[in-house]
Amino acid sequence: MSKFWSPFVKDLVPYVPGEQPKMSRLVKLNTNENPYGPSPKVLEAIRAELGDDLRLYPDPNGERLKQTVADYYGVQPAQVFVGNGSDEVLAHVFHALFQHGQPLLFPDISYSFYPVYCGLYGIPFEAVPLDAQFRIAVADYARPNGGIIFPNPNAPTGCLLPLAAIRQLLEDNGDSVVVVDEAYIDFGGESAISLVDEYPNLLVTQTLSKSRSLAGLRVGLAVGNAELIEALERVKNSFNSYPLDRLALAGAVAAFEDQDYFEQTCQTVVASREQLVVDLQDLGFEVLPSAANFVFARHPQRDAAELAAGLRERGVIVRHFKQERISQFLRITVGDAEQNMALQEALGELLA
Amino acid sequence: MSKFWSPFVKDLVPYVPGEQPKMSRLVKLNTNENPYGPSPKVLEAIRAELGDDLRLYPDPNGERLKQTVADYYGVQPAQVFVGNGSDEVLAHVFHALFQHGQPLLFPDISYSFYPVYCGLYGIPFEAVPLDAQFRIAVADYARPNGGIIFPNPNAPTGCLLPLAAIRQLLEDNGDSVVVVDEAYIDFGGESAISLVDEYPNLLVTQTLSKSRSLAGLRVGLAVGNAELIEALERVKNSFNSYPLDRLALAGAVAAFEDQDYFEQTCQTVVASREQLVVDLQDLGFEVLPSAANFVFARHPQRDAAELAAGLRERGVIVRHFKQERISQFLRITVGDAEQNMALQEALGELLA
Repeated sequence: MSKFWSPFVKDLVPYVPGEQPKMSRLVKLNTNENPYGPSPKVLEAIRAELGDDLRLYPDPNGERLKQTVADYYGVQPAQVFVGNGSDEVLAHVFHALFQHGQPLLFPDISYSFYPVYCGLYGIPFEAVPLDAQFRIAVADYARPNGGIIFPNPNAPTGCLLPLAAIRQLLEDNGDSVVVVDEAYIDFGGESAISLVDEYPNLLVTQTLSKSRSLAGLRVGLAVGNAELIEALERVKNSFNSYPLDRLALAGAVAAFEDQDYFEQTCQTVVASREQLVVDLQDLGFEVLPSAANFVFARHPQRDAAELAAGLRERGVIVRHFKQERISQFLRITVGDAEQNMALQEALGELLA
Repeated sequence: MSKFWSPFVKDLVPYVPGEQPKMSRLVKLNTNENPYGPSPKVLEAIRAELGDDLRLYPDPNGERLKQTVADYYGVQPAQVFVGNGSDEVLAHVFHALFQHGQPLLFPDISYSFYPVYCGLYGIPFEAVPLDAQFRIAVADYARPNGGIIFPNPNAPTGCLLPLAAIRQLLEDNGDSVVVVDEAYIDFGGESAISLVDEYPNLLVTQTLSKSRSLAGLRVGLAVGNAELIEALERVKNSFNSYPLDRLALAGAVAAFEDQDYFEQTCQTVVASREQLVVDLQDLGFEVLPSAANFVFARHPQRDAAELAAGLRERGVIVRHFKQERISQFLRITVGDAEQNMALQEALGELLA
């Protein structure tokens, strides 16, 4: 460690994102991107914004995007926060809302960025074990805490927590902020945004990276009580006034405006997922019930790390986590028909 | 304050960026944007990137951009950090390199985001007064500190500190990180990047928002010793893996590759600045020597806030800071010929 570093930097264990390979011929089923491109109207809106006005700063408050999201979900613009991908939104959430001395609670099997944020902001945490079926057991969270966060559907398991259980969690923890990270909600879940007017302690985060096919554009958002949003705005405006560039703002607005394209691609992904589950089961895999655009599967007779390596040799990349309880699982993104076929073929060879 | 907020949020005093007016007919000389659009090659490169691949995450490490910047400045890619505007880069710098207990030093008249970052990360600071001519006096920084940062040319004064003085500062403060914030360096200064191999305590930040006409795209960078860059990478990768979207990465690379356009626009802005100085002096203004794309000027007989209000009524917006020592100054961005003419006319009316 350098003497020039702030002391906490020495102990930071940064997040490791899924590989973005340089080889374009790989079948990329490792980072839960959408197999379909963004709406043509998104590309059109960005093209219209692409000109000399790039010399000018964007709207620091992203007002048009906030209004669009607010209209979409039937809330007020003051209940909407936008940021540079939901990862940035989550970073501000941890900083602005989770520093209360008491441990933050999240599932032991969950988004692996959460403990990293805790390291960055010095937040104590406790990982609460999922039950034997890899589900969140709401009753386990009814204890002193400085906040609660979990993805819904959970990642990397894909399991969905129903709204009734979320309501129970909110009731049990009225003095804590409960953050529902809905990166994958559009593939089969019901958003908890419908509860934000009822529960001042609820914050819901979403991303345009998955269901809106815009991982490459970096837009995320949060919806909740205006008081929670105010904390995020204060931190954001003390960090970076303009996190969303002009092109990202224009594209994000257009993405929310093209409902037909959104519904159509989501439905196609969901149908492909259901077929993928059947195909994997036919190959002998056990597959957790998924409400996301990926499945979490293990083969009773085959080591997951070896399967992942074998798939890679055959040009297919999936994600494997070297983590207790899930080291025998593979997380496989739902691809298009061609990608899913390539996966089946490669697995067929490996399991033959 | 809400009980849900992390306690420090209550005392945050966020940065207030210059206004981005909705009315497009205003002559906008308030946020130091370039009067000329980005290089046509930048727009072309973004257009080429604009397609279905937006569904895929960008390169989290921005390797191609780092290589381009490294080649441009004759350093190694490991000496380059890139981020979502230089504001985000600076936020990570404060977090990763300035938390040492001792006060951070910066000029009393300087970029007003610096004390905001200190508030965000709990960093003590001392504002070191500029001398009577509004210049940085290097000798005043030779005292115990947890780091030093200043813009060069300074903002909002426009005054340039020569490299010899920066060298002295680095020698005097070998145990502290010295950050030279070169947002405006391309309009008449010499970059301190030439010194990074000599001084392991030097970090230089730059932005593509000013000299490369890309305020709307949000790209900034830092160059320094690989050990300093490593601290920034650790913090960045614990905050947001992908701060630069695919379009921003493509546009930024193209901006560094079109040297002709860059030199031509910078020269035009510098020539306009010299003319603007003469014109303002003819109107009775005292103008500080500027090496930036703005001038800092006061009129001995007229109140600056009243002048700013009068200009606004005439459709011209400039920046006025209600701050001790400089409350009688206006910061005026160098515009194109038409904008400068509109400013002259409005000032002529006001001073008549």
